[in-house]
Amino acid sequence: MITENSKRTEDAQIRQLINSRVKAMQDKDINGLMSNYSPEVVEFDAVNPLRYNGINETRKRAEEWFGAYKGPIGYEVRDLSITTGNDVAFCHFLYHISGIMTNGSEVDMWVRDTICYRKIDGNWMITHEHTSVPFEVESGKASLALKP
Amino acid sequence: MITENSKRTEDAQIRQLINSRVKAMQDKDINGLMSNYSPEVVEFDAVNPLRYNGINETRKRAEEWFGAYKGPIGYEVRDLSITTGNDVAFCHFLYHISGIMTNGSEVDMWVRDTICYRKIDGNWMITHEHTSVPFEVESGKASLALKP
Repeated sequence: MITENSKRTEDAQIRQLINSRVKAMQDKDINGLMSNYSPEVVEFDAVNPLRYNGINETRKRAEEWFGAYKGPIGYEVRDLSITTGNDVAFCHFLYHISGIMTNGSEVDMWVRDTICYRKIDGNWMITHEHTSVPFEVESGKASLALKP
Repeated sequence: MITENSKRTEDAQIRQLINSRVKAMQDKDINGLMSNYSPEVVEFDAVNPLRYNGINETRKRAEEWFGAYKGPIGYEVRDLSITTGNDVAFCHFLYHISGIMTNGSEVDMWVRDTICYRKIDGNWMITHEHTSVPFEVESGKASLALKP
């Protein structure tokens, strides 16, 4: 069994990774953002398609996404919950994303994120991520104006 | 470290839970479906709101959802990936859901699902689930017609 002390250490490691992620988002730092994704990551993103397979597809998507913002990206994490074991962990949180797109449209929305990790060679690596907004059944529209 | 043998056992346990889930969905068996959700589960569902907190909200949502189908629910799982540790695990998959709603509309769509577990008193319990479809940026519509 994993001890309470080591659980606290693992939780702190994941928390540090999320802090680094926030900074990488705000700085549009693609290398920083991608530094703890596993080569085999399976990504379910908030926008089409159904999934991205592997780090190359995931990185390309993140580059396009950074490039779609004219100026800085606002990225705020809320209600972070972390669960860690010896070599498997996951966390989930809501994030608020804001900014102006290159086409002039304004982004200001809350998104759900689940990140799943395996410890590989001593480092927590993301092997799966699921990011989404829910949709409204009646209209079939993605719900971009919900607030927690 | 968890051994290869015990990992295979844990993987088989999660696979069995997913098999039971498929059966519970097809049978609209609410008790079967909810039997391995933790009381503290945080659920990010495919439709509004942003999240459900706790098993009561999650169960109520599942009951409404079963009730919204006139006849049987078709539920097929594809590309199941399972990652297990000693006491933390996660899996992800796509599922195809089909059927006729009480309002006459036809459901026939592919959905992404991520399920996260903790082993509590020797049983794998769902403490977090994230279910969604992606949306199309241009139209703002949920993408209900994607195929894997």
